[in-house]
Formats: sequence, C-alpha cells, structure tokens
Amino acid sequence: MYSDELKKKTKNFSPGERIKVVTDKKEIEGLLMPSPEITSSPEHLILKLDNGYNTGIHQDKIKKVKEPEEPEPKSIQQEYDQETDWHPHSKSECEKGNVKIINTGGTVASKVDYRTGAVNAALSAEEIASLVPEIRDFSCIDFKQVSETMSEDIGYKNWIEMAEEADKALKQNDGVVITHGTDTMHYSAAALSFFLQKGPVVFTGAQRSTDRGSSDSAMNLICSTIMAGTGMNETGICMHATPSDDYCHFIRGTKARKMHSSARNAFRPINDKPVAKIWPDGKIKGIQDPLNRSGELDTKFDPKVELVKAYPSSDPEVIDYHVDNGVNGLVIEGTGLGHVPTQARKSWIPSIKAAVNSGVPVVVCTQTLYGRVDENVYSNLRTLYYDANAISGKDMLPETAYVKLGWVLGHTKKMDKVQEMMHENYAGEFNDRLQLDDFLY
Amino acid sequence: MYSDELKKKTKNFSPGERIKVVTDKKEIEGLLMPSPEITSSPEHLILKLDNGYNTGIHQDKIKKVKEPEEPEPKSIQQEYDQETDWHPHSKSECEKGNVKIINTGGTVASKVDYRTGAVNAALSAEEIASLVPEIRDFSCIDFKQVSETMSEDIGYKNWIEMAEEADKALKQNDGVVITHGTDTMHYSAAALSFFLQKGPVVFTGAQRSTDRGSSDSAMNLICSTIMAGTGMNETGICMHATPSDDYCHFIRGTKARKMHSSARNAFRPINDKPVAKIWPDGKIKGIQDPLNRSGELDTKFDPKVELVKAYPSSDPEVIDYHVDNGVNGLVIEGTGLGHVPTQARKSWIPSIKAAVNSGVPVVVCTQTLYGRVDENVYSNLRTLYYDANAISGKDMLPETAYVKLGWVLGHTKKMDKVQEMMHENYAGEFNDRLQLDDFLY
Repeated sequence: MYSDELKKKTKNFSPGERIKVVTDKKEIEGLLMPSPEITSSPEHLILKLDNGYNTGIHQDKIKKVKEPEEPEPKSIQQEYDQETDWHPHSKSECEKGNVKIINTGGTVASKVDYRTGAVNAALSAEEIASLVPEIRDFSCIDFKQVSETMSEDIGYKNWIEMAEEADKALKQNDGVVITHGTDTMHYSAAALSFFLQKGPVVFTGAQRSTDRGSSDSAMNLICSTIMAGTGMNETGICMHATPSDDYCHFIRGTKARKMHSSARNAFRPINDKPVAKIWPDGKIKGIQDPLNRSGELDTKFDPKVELVKAYPSSDPEVIDYHVDNGVNGLVIEGTGLGHVPTQARKSWIPSIKAAVNSGVPVVVCTQTLYGRVDENVYSNLRTLYYDANAISGKDMLPETAYVKLGWVLGHTKKMDKVQEMMHENYAGEFNDRLQLDDFLY
Repeated sequence: MYSDELKKKTKNFSPGERIKVVTDKKEIEGLLMPSPEITSSPEHLILKLDNGYNTGIHQDKIKKVKEPEEPEPKSIQQEYDQETDWHPHSKSECEKGNVKIINTGGTVASKVDYRTGAVNAALSAEEIASLVPEIRDFSCIDFKQVSETMSEDIGYKNWIEMAEEADKALKQNDGVVITHGTDTMHYSAAALSFFLQKGPVVFTGAQRSTDRGSSDSAMNLICSTIMAGTGMNETGICMHATPSDDYCHFIRGTKARKMHSSARNAFRPINDKPVAKIWPDGKIKGIQDPLNRSGELDTKFDPKVELVKAYPSSDPEVIDYHVDNGVNGLVIEGTGLGHVPTQARKSWIPSIKAAVNSGVPVVVCTQTLYGRVDENVYSNLRTLYYDANAISGKDMLPETAYVKLGWVLGHTKKMDKVQEMMHENYAGEFNDRLQLDDFLY
C-alpha cells in the first residue's frame, strides 16, 4: 500500500494509467503500478517503464505527477513505386540510371567443379551479370572486379578497399551493388555502414553458386540492382526474404545477421525490421523510413579489437591475455541483459576493470542477439557498467559492435570519447523503438 | 551432356527423378540432375543430395542406378491428453503423482527491491510455490533448495549438484522441476541432458520476478509441473511459447537457446521443433516423439574446455593461448557451413592442426546457430575437417557442443574415441530430419 502522501500525489490517476513523474532532475514516463499489499517501501512510487521493467521513485523526490503529452505519431510506412523519380540524381547518360557491380568473390562468383563437388570462386562481375541478363531491364550496369575472396578470408583491409571503390562508384553512378560471400557479408555491410554513411550500397550474394539451376543468385542480383537504383542513403544486405523465389528484403547493414548456414532466407534483421521489400519485377515497398544522412568516406580503422564470449565457467584470463597482447578494444558477448560471470570459476569483473583502467574499452552486447543490454536491472549489472565502466552495447549486434569499436578506435583512444561515439547512432545500429514483433522477424 | 555410358546407366530415369546410385563403397540417394550443356566432366553423374548440395560421381565407380526404396513414414504427431496414465510409475502416496521442485535461484526466485528497482534472489522453493497455488491442482509437490545463484554465476559444479539432486528426486517422484535463472538455463539443461539421460527433468524460470503482477513465473511453473508429471524421459526447458500468457513449449535441453534478453518467449528450439505444447489448464500436446532412453547418472566432466569465435581478421593465436594454458578441448563458432579464416590476418588452420596434434580435440559449430556444418562443400572446409582433423559439430548448438565436449572428455581423452562420442546422438543434440520450417520456429 502506498503512503498517504503518495496516495495524494497520484489521486487523479488509476493503476495502469500512463503518467509522467516530474522530479528535480528529470521527467519519467510510465504506467502507474499498484503498491504490493505488503511492502517494505510504501514511500516508493512504482512505475512500469516502456522497456518493461519497474522502477521505484521516493515520494520526497516527486515534485508533480501529471498526464504525459501525446506521443509523436509513428512514421507512416511509405510505399515506393517504380517511377523515374527513383533516379533523382542520375549521373550518367543512361536514362534508366546507372548501377556499378563490384565483385569481391564468394559463392555468387563460384562455379561447381563436378569432379569434386566442391565450389571455387571463379566468375568475374561481367560473367555473373551475363548469367542474369534481367538486371539490365532496370539499370545500365558497370563492373569492377576487386578480388576473388571467399567469405572466410575477408578482413578489414577488404572492407577499406570496398569502401573506397564504392565511394568512387557513387560519384559516377546512382548506386552500387557489391557481390560478396555470404558468411561474413554482415560484418562487411556493418563496416561499410560506418565507413561510408551514404548509399545506396547493396551487398548481395548467393547460397548456391550462380551456375546452378537452383541458385538464388539471379533473384538476389535483380532485387539488389533495383534497390541500388533508389538513391537511398543506405548500406545494407539484399537477399531472399523467404525460402521461395518470391521477394527479397533489404536489411540495414548494422542490423543484418546470417542466421542459417544454408537456407536462402538466411539473412534476418535483428532488433529491426527490414528497410524495404523488393520484388524481382521491379516493385519495391518501404517497411520503414530510410536513414537520412550523407557522410564522406571515412575508413580510419584500428584492427586491434577482439570479440570474446562469456559462458558458464568461462575463463576471464582471456581478457588479460588480449590486453597483454596489445589489444586496443574488446567486445564481450555477455549473457541475457549483458551479464558476465561474477563467481563460478572466477569473476570477470576484475579483468574487465583492469582492461578499462589500462585504457582498453570493453563493450558488452548480449549473446541472445535479440533484445538489449540493460545496465539497471540487476545488482551485478550495476557493478559491471557503473563500477568496472564497461560500455553497454544496448541492442547492437556483437558483430556490429566489433566492427564499430574498430572504427571508433580509428578516430580516438580517449575513453570518454570512445564511450560517447559507441553510444552515438551513426548507421541505424541502435533501434530505440524495438518492438515485440521484431523478434524472429 | 553426359557420356554415352552414363546415358545408358540412367536410361530408366529422367532428370529430377529420385534415384539410388550403388557404388563399391556405398549407396547414395538423391535427385538425378542433368549435365550442363558444356561441361568438362561428362563422365560425372550429378546428384542433388537431400542437404541441397550437388555431388559428382564418376561413371567407373557406379555399379548400378536403381529406384530408391520407399522412405520410412514420418512419425505421426501424437496427442497426449491429461489422463491418469500420465503417471504410470507414481512412486508416492499421492494419487495425482508427485513432482519435486528444486530451486537454484534466478529471477523466478527473486524479489524486487523498489528502493533501488533492482532484483535479488531471495525466495525459497516453498515461497515460489506458495505464490502459485495452482500447481497443486496437478501434482503433489515436494521441495528442495539447492542454491541461491543468479544465472551468470552458475558453473559446472552446479550442473553436477543439480544432476545428483534430480537423480535422487527421480527415484521417489514422477518428475522434477528445476527453477533456474534464465540467462544460462540452456547450458544447464544441456548439461543435465547428458548427465542424466532420463526424466522428466523440466527447467523453468521467469523473465520477470515472481512477486510482480506481470510475472511470467506462474504460467511457466504450472506448465512445468504438468510436463514433469508425464513420465517422459526428457530433460528440457519449459517456458512461454509466445509473448502472451497462452501456452508453453517444452524444448529439448540440447536444442534450446535463450534468443531474447527480455521477452517472455525468449527460449526457442534451434534446428528442432519443441517436444510438446502445454496449456496451463492441464492440456498437453506432443509435437514430436519424446526420446526413448533411460540412462544412469553419469556426471564425469572435464571443465577444461573453452569456446572461441571466429570472425573477420580474428586472431588464431587465441587457440595457441588456450592450448598453452592446458585446455583439454576447444569449440569454435565458425562462420556459415563451419569455416575459419584461412588468410586475412593469419590462417586458423595451423593453430587448429597443432592443437589436434597435441591431443586437444577441436569441434567446429556454426555461429549462424540455425543450419548445420557441412564439411564437404568448399575446399577450405575439406582442409579443416580432413587435413587439420577438426570435428564437425553438425547441427549442434555451440553452447551444447561446449557442454558435451566437457562431458565426453570426462570419459576419454583418446582422440578417435572423442570424435566417436561427439558424433553419437545421446540426447537429441543432432537432428537428422532438419526441416526448413524449423528455422525461426
């Protein structure tokens, strides 16, 4: 039961109603919760926050309880039709607009060797395009061969090369399609999201090599070419949305993840919706508003970052090992809301604290992938984020945080600046409007 | 175009038809594929395998091409109704059957401290049960308090303790419910799947503490108690199947993963369907056949195992570090079909080869989580699995492989025996009938 003072302060509201609590320092919005029948803290007003958790506010801190203002209306889902104004800044002679295909290798550029059954990167950008003539229905096509690298061998130097090539291409074309191996495509797409901050840069590939009848490569290339013609300032991945050949999704590069080793619809948006739905006949429908940004090429990158996973009975000394080895930043895949072990075997907290104190920022994401890190719910979390000064990765994918931390460290080594940049939303890597139906989209 | 000899051998079949190819060594089933118009290998018969990949078989190796036998009919989904024969081996005086609740801590055993908003493990098994009186409608309830540990601090010693307590309890009760923090519940459920190999052992917990009105704890406990009364020899996780309070899923312990940091329906089956669907009114419906097994308690476990992730530009020296540090086994989360970097920065292959040659088995799973490792598709994979002798984790979760490898190493250190045991299906950790609709179930 609430104290008399709290009863008075909330007399205009019923439990369950949305209220705004004004304190000296801030205004907090949430649902008014009833106080438990038996409680040790009747002077604490209980508020259910939008993140689903409850918070308690002491009555002495409450200046006023009022009705919240109307929330901003949600952005209306826009429909884009295939019109000529898709190409508002056509930079070429080609009326249909101009798309450059940059080939880096991978299964989409592979042929099967039927003697062994194995596949090897072999096709050039031109050869890939010649197998899918339909792409010329939507755009004039240019080509650039950058490498012949399978997914597992792509590294940060390839990211820089791709970004430079895409930047050059965007000066002369309406958009860029980058063909890439699928396994690490989401790492590359995240990297170019930070390196370029403009677009359209559309990564695509195939789960079955292009010379096979059952290949998904044709539809992926067609949809990607259509997406690259939109002029949107987005960098992302365009692949099959379903196991059938019906339509593709364009997923923001910082929110995409390969979630299946072989399915055509392996790429899913994590903590996000796709940006657009694209049909191979040229129709395209926006699912959310594209990012509004236009940055310059910025490939400053520090590759001395490592990604470490926390699990039951795991060894925190691996943190010390990386620090001793000269790492400049660490990303930890914590459990649940962003936990690391604090007992079992050995606590991770001292190693994290030592890393941070020696100048190595430690970012914690969640290994659940979906959902977000929340540094306020459990006491162990407060120790990790407020005492050991780990940086919360919020709802960012561990893979995106790994790429972003390298990019941030390419710009500054100052701990407070690193924290500030890690929490700035450069490329849609954070989603403040995370909704339940984003789970397993 | 196929050679004349191949045309002759396949004359009774049309392209696309299912055939069985008999060679000296084995019989291979798949769809007969046409040979490409222009091919460098007309003597290779092309067969599309059930995993979606094509393979080539040289004509000299083909003894016969024949019709495949009728495949075994699929298991029929069974419906279980709440009848007394749920309790075929009731070991107590209680007519409704007897379920023991073993409490290990976690959010389900936590109370909110509204002064700080934080939650702490505080409730005993009895207190949890007293907040959910409905569980007594289905069973007589016994209690056992084992620890008060939050998820992040559960380690292998807790697994052994839980297994011993569950084993004792199963001798006197029809089933066991273990209340547990959710973050690492799937690691513990996997561990007990190997340690016990009988059941029912039902892990459950809560995403919101039990003393909250919005808690998911009540329904999870009720469904778990119902599941624990079935007598099935399964160990797994029983939690909300949807974001609403409608029904729960019981997911096999080796196939369950927490996929969302805060949603009620965070636990999902990966590469599997749930075993059963359970409504809080007592209805239970089987989705697949339960495992048929009844093993003895076997907690032999070697904790010297570590889990390492491979990613672009990642450092293979972390393998050497763990080996130098005295690790007895390693699990790698590879990319896609089970790759590790072979160029960019440095190849992982020599470090893996050195680890295996020094007696440390290396198991590779996929970081996509869904789908399986396939050691035959790409040449880099063949090097990893056939030359460096890494062990394929197939469709096993990396977390399950981590637990299993520790259990296997508790029984043997001989490399060939480790490989054999890692590939034996003890607790439903492999799913040979992986279907497309298992993705994002």
